[in-house]
Amino acid sequence: MTGVGGPGSGVVEDATVSAFGEHALIDRIRRRLPPAPDWLIVDVGDDAAVYEPVRNRLEVITTDAVVDGVHVDRRFVPAGAIGHRAVAVNLSDLAAMGATPRLLTLSLALPDDLSLSDFDALVDGALALAERAGARLVGGNITRSRGPLMVDVTAVGSVHRRRILRRSGARPGDYVFVSGTLGDARAGLALLADPSGAHAEAWPDVVARYLRPEPRLRLGQVLGRSRAPTAALDLSDGLADGLARLTADHGLGCEIDATALPMSASATAVWQSRGADPVAEAVTGGDDYELAFTVRPKESRRLGAVIRAVGGLRLTRIGVVTRDAGCWLVDAERQRSPIGRGYEHFSR
Amino acid sequence: MTGVGGPGSGVVEDATVSAFGEHALIDRIRRRLPPAPDWLIVDVGDDAAVYEPVRNRLEVITTDAVVDGVHVDRRFVPAGAIGHRAVAVNLSDLAAMGATPRLLTLSLALPDDLSLSDFDALVDGALALAERAGARLVGGNITRSRGPLMVDVTAVGSVHRRRILRRSGARPGDYVFVSGTLGDARAGLALLADPSGAHAEAWPDVVARYLRPEPRLRLGQVLGRSRAPTAALDLSDGLADGLARLTADHGLGCEIDATALPMSASATAVWQSRGADPVAEAVTGGDDYELAFTVRPKESRRLGAVIRAVGGLRLTRIGVVTRDAGCWLVDAERQRSPIGRGYEHFSR
Repeated sequence: MTGVGGPGSGVVEDATVSAFGEHALIDRIRRRLPPAPDWLIVDVGDDAAVYEPVRNRLEVITTDAVVDGVHVDRRFVPAGAIGHRAVAVNLSDLAAMGATPRLLTLSLALPDDLSLSDFDALVDGALALAERAGARLVGGNITRSRGPLMVDVTAVGSVHRRRILRRSGARPGDYVFVSGTLGDARAGLALLADPSGAHAEAWPDVVARYLRPEPRLRLGQVLGRSRAPTAALDLSDGLADGLARLTADHGLGCEIDATALPMSASATAVWQSRGADPVAEAVTGGDDYELAFTVRPKESRRLGAVIRAVGGLRLTRIGVVTRDAGCWLVDAERQRSPIGRGYEHFSR
Repeated sequence: MTGVGGPGSGVVEDATVSAFGEHALIDRIRRRLPPAPDWLIVDVGDDAAVYEPVRNRLEVITTDAVVDGVHVDRRFVPAGAIGHRAVAVNLSDLAAMGATPRLLTLSLALPDDLSLSDFDALVDGALALAERAGARLVGGNITRSRGPLMVDVTAVGSVHRRRILRRSGARPGDYVFVSGTLGDARAGLALLADPSGAHAEAWPDVVARYLRPEPRLRLGQVLGRSRAPTAALDLSDGLADGLARLTADHGLGCEIDATALPMSASATAVWQSRGADPVAEAVTGGDDYELAFTVRPKESRRLGAVIRAVGGLRLTRIGVVTRDAGCWLVDAERQRSPIGRGYEHFSR
């Protein structure tokens, strides 16, 4: 009976947003939206939205922010890498739709103590990746921040209607593929964040994977053109999170072969040196920005042409979509352990 | 000779961004950009960028942020008004290009202490204006802020090539027009920010002008269709700033008739009650989001149709563009006083 009749009785205290994850808050917004207009081909909830400004011409738009203290830490992430990353996370969303980048806008909130040379490095890091990806900066705004440095980018690209890669579409029996290697970025982050500063030079490849993630634009475009995937997304928040979006969000599950997970020798060495389990880190670690996608078994021969088109980038079959909900990691002894949903940036 | 040979000699201390205004920083970015591609019709530096995704179809894109403590103050601006404003400032940029809004993205950085009811009110405020303006929210992201609440919106619209309203194009002898009344929003802000809390109820109209600015979309579209303006922009940072962008940025000047400035009875009463000069406040006060535009005298008869099309919104001729640089306010006694550039958000 505590509090009944006391001060504040009858008052339901208003919850704060800190009690909710990003996805719960996004759901609150989605419930407030009017029905999608007919020109909106892919709505809120995918890697990016797809719309049709004129008949048979589709545009893709996405927006994402990089915030000091949440997504990066200025104490060990150089300004140029922050600029690179802010563009990369958005281009990665375009890649995950199969889109070709066209343009960017850049919105900066700058703390007063940011040096001009860091400002220039941030801009140069953003523009260098944008130019390499064929995306032109066309607008933006700059404001003062009384809090952290925030870099907010919106990216627009184009895609053909029949080449759109969506998150929804996986079916039981589909193979699950990932590009590249998993867990490298988290290993790089662990090295950079280590206050002893030790070992960051020993494994420069995983440090670079964290600082300068490479959006898989070519892969996304070639996958879209192949029409092999039934679903696809980018692994911004890690494999566990990505698997949940490909399967659990649609009432499905998956079985992932732990022995098949592609991991770099460096990431494995980093985790072994720290007494951690490389597989667990590869499953939950975010920031790799590899693509994950599902393919019907009989269509998987189409991936041969994809692999040739993307050159050195590895594609690995890591498991299968199941009818039963829940994703499981299966080890060499066929022991099954559940794969959670990973974490959300907002709740970190 | 202070410092020579002493500690730090030879080291040029790196300046911080706090020493620069928003426009100086934007110029640093512009200098780093590659040449504009041919599909980019209006580049960085106007109210919004215009591009051509397919031949003869133009899209307009703009991005702008609203930051607590910089652009608004949560202590006296309700969450719903913050959401409204974040959408309004972007739609106003589209209006200033003559564009029709199509879609929005929303990027939120939320402090942990934001209540869920304030989150909902913010979203509702944003969506209500978006829906009224015909713009659909198609994407966004939410992140935690260890600093202030930040709401970053990107808006996309469409415009016909020959109906684009640009900032450049004013010529000596052109008349200068503004829509609506000037200085209302600043008067509303002065009332809201007054710690005594007095008088905000006495002049609800100017308070509403500050809290819920109305983007002049219909006016922008009709002006674009009329092809009367030689140049146009929105007065987000006040008349003085807008005049400088229409004239000084292109080596021109202007003469503004102080007696012609359209001011509401409420704003005038607010400033008189506070012992301030209503004209000075109308010239420098930002946040009105009216449109300013220039028209060749012989084309000004075209404005008759514009005025009929926009119904109750007032259009006022306030002055003339001059060949000589510098803008001047001319009072009833023909006394001339210089009009500065106004302020920049970043340097506030």
